[in-house]
Amino acid sequence: VNARLAPLALTMGEPAGIAAEITLKAWRQLRAVGPAFCYVGPSALLAATALRLGIDNVPLQAIGDAGDAHAVFSHALPVIELALPGEVTPGKPSAANAGAVIGSIEQAVDLARQGHISAVVTNPIQKSVLQQAGFAHPGHTEFLQQLAAPGGRATMLLAGPELRVVPVTIHQSLKSALAALDQNMIVETALAAAAGLAQDFGISAPRLAVAGLNPHAGEDGHMGDEEIRIIRPAVEVLRRRGIDATGPWSPDTMFAARARRRYDAAICMYHDQALIPLKTLDVNGGVNVTLGLPFVRTSPDHGTALDIAGKGIAEPGSLISALRLAGQLALNRRSTMRGPANAMSNEKNSRTKDPNYA
Amino acid sequence: VNARLAPLALTMGEPAGIAAEITLKAWRQLRAVGPAFCYVGPSALLAATALRLGIDNVPLQAIGDAGDAHAVFSHALPVIELALPGEVTPGKPSAANAGAVIGSIEQAVDLARQGHISAVVTNPIQKSVLQQAGFAHPGHTEFLQQLAAPGGRATMLLAGPELRVVPVTIHQSLKSALAALDQNMIVETALAAAAGLAQDFGISAPRLAVAGLNPHAGEDGHMGDEEIRIIRPAVEVLRRRGIDATGPWSPDTMFAARARRRYDAAICMYHDQALIPLKTLDVNGGVNVTLGLPFVRTSPDHGTALDIAGKGIAEPGSLISALRLAGQLALNRRSTMRGPANAMSNEKNSRTKDPNYA
Repeated sequence: VNARLAPLALTMGEPAGIAAEITLKAWRQLRAVGPAFCYVGPSALLAATALRLGIDNVPLQAIGDAGDAHAVFSHALPVIELALPGEVTPGKPSAANAGAVIGSIEQAVDLARQGHISAVVTNPIQKSVLQQAGFAHPGHTEFLQQLAAPGGRATMLLAGPELRVVPVTIHQSLKSALAALDQNMIVETALAAAAGLAQDFGISAPRLAVAGLNPHAGEDGHMGDEEIRIIRPAVEVLRRRGIDATGPWSPDTMFAARARRRYDAAICMYHDQALIPLKTLDVNGGVNVTLGLPFVRTSPDHGTALDIAGKGIAEPGSLISALRLAGQLALNRRSTMRGPANAMSNEKNSRTKDPNYA
Repeated sequence: VNARLAPLALTMGEPAGIAAEITLKAWRQLRAVGPAFCYVGPSALLAATALRLGIDNVPLQAIGDAGDAHAVFSHALPVIELALPGEVTPGKPSAANAGAVIGSIEQAVDLARQGHISAVVTNPIQKSVLQQAGFAHPGHTEFLQQLAAPGGRATMLLAGPELRVVPVTIHQSLKSALAALDQNMIVETALAAAAGLAQDFGISAPRLAVAGLNPHAGEDGHMGDEEIRIIRPAVEVLRRRGIDATGPWSPDTMFAARARRRYDAAICMYHDQALIPLKTLDVNGGVNVTLGLPFVRTSPDHGTALDIAGKGIAEPGSLISALRLAGQLALNRRSTMRGPANAMSNEKNSRTKDPNYA
């Protein structure tokens, strides 16, 4: 018996950005095929946005119980109502609404923990405005970590149609990333990636390709010694722990078409080593997946786009990919939690990095 | 009157590598359509390679004058004979042949300087073996620079079908590249790129996109200050000198399909920032072009491939691209040297980064 998966929850994100616009557009594309999601935010914002931008034919329906989203989704966008205290001016975030933005995330997490939804998909937030209002986290990922599993280690995976990447260092200068990189960070990140690929992507023995840091992976120490001192020892630790890790690979050749078919995710040493190949290949920039949380979480890999807010030209492609992938990952997680037979049934699709990016 | 362009010269490269094999295969693909090239090396090596690998139907014809290559090319591979003193064992380079390998490069440069050939295309060499025999240059590029224009500054451009990149720092560790990067290097490299794109690629006012160094190009100094201290000032100097330079751009988004249509070359801060997007897009890894020499020079962007030498499985794609591009660049250079009217006639093709990579 394959009981229906609970719906997804989509947070409101920054109300002065493009979140409401892409939410409306995403529903129009997904209403017939799913996955069903409910919006956790103010229906008034959606209605005003639809009116301003001429996005017709998106009926909104308030629901009290997330489970009702399934029955509603094909004919209306289900909304779990949340009040917004301040005015909304496209392109001009207001600290008066910061509490509601944060509240939407908290409520989605609550719904996930209670089992009412199967995954959290987050619209982009404007960190600087939230921080003015007392938000003390560097970003979404750390906040979710704190809400859901304090003390754990959330890991970012980016999934595109042809490539998955996991950066070991992320939002810091290249110089400080080089100084920070150590064997333990690589091992911990790769272990989290392997666990996430098994649990959420249904890949029971994921193949990890660990990137070098220097040109040609250092050419045996002739161009940098981090491969010898840090990266190769990390790969050896991973292999001793039973992980199918290889490398360090030459960073410039490991993302070519033939090479990337040989692994399920690339473990990358710095932000652009991961993001350059991903965005070079995929116009939508892939989907951001947080591994290591007690629920599935995805988000589009773009920001609030304040510069184009209120203009009607925002593209919902990355959000749609994030919603589809969240649905697929939630299905996979349920299968892997139930046992290996179900997990295996998803593996073929997952390996091939199909259009769901799963 | 569009007088026929002089033929290209192709050097022998490392005789124990795949050079002879890919030379034979390249002639078979180009004999009907050109560009005509002559091989500067031992015909005995080509003949033995053809026999061993069963590469049939490649008649060899010794020529005394490079100009004869045109008449010969459609029915035989033209060879400017050069003796090889030592034995050749595939996969095992011998210092006994180092002098001949170097001699092939010297002779091709002589032919270019005398106007007998229109471009030099180099097969890959094994630097470590040449260095044992007293070769004192880090690589091909520096040797050619020394032979042809001592004291000048040769600049490496890599051209793929969809992207051209010019790295400012190249073969050094990432840490040392960060330490070495300065405003003057960026300006000099970009000026050489602009001059080369105008003279050889027929793009009269090339658009240069200068990459940032840090994630998101530093986000106004929040993640590294090299953009503020070094890169933005370099872009300003370039603009004051009349170059259409923009940036610093966020490295992860500037190579996406839509973004890369807006420039003719990306000026990159380090090796992998240039090579990752190029090789992610192009299986053959593009063509290596040396700008700043008194003649056109290209080479395939792979090494001697000693591990597969003598097996018959080497792919000639990158060498064929290098030969085609050399022919196109030589035509462009002749046009731009003759005046702007001819140069303009090539511009449309060059802008679109067509299959010739020109």
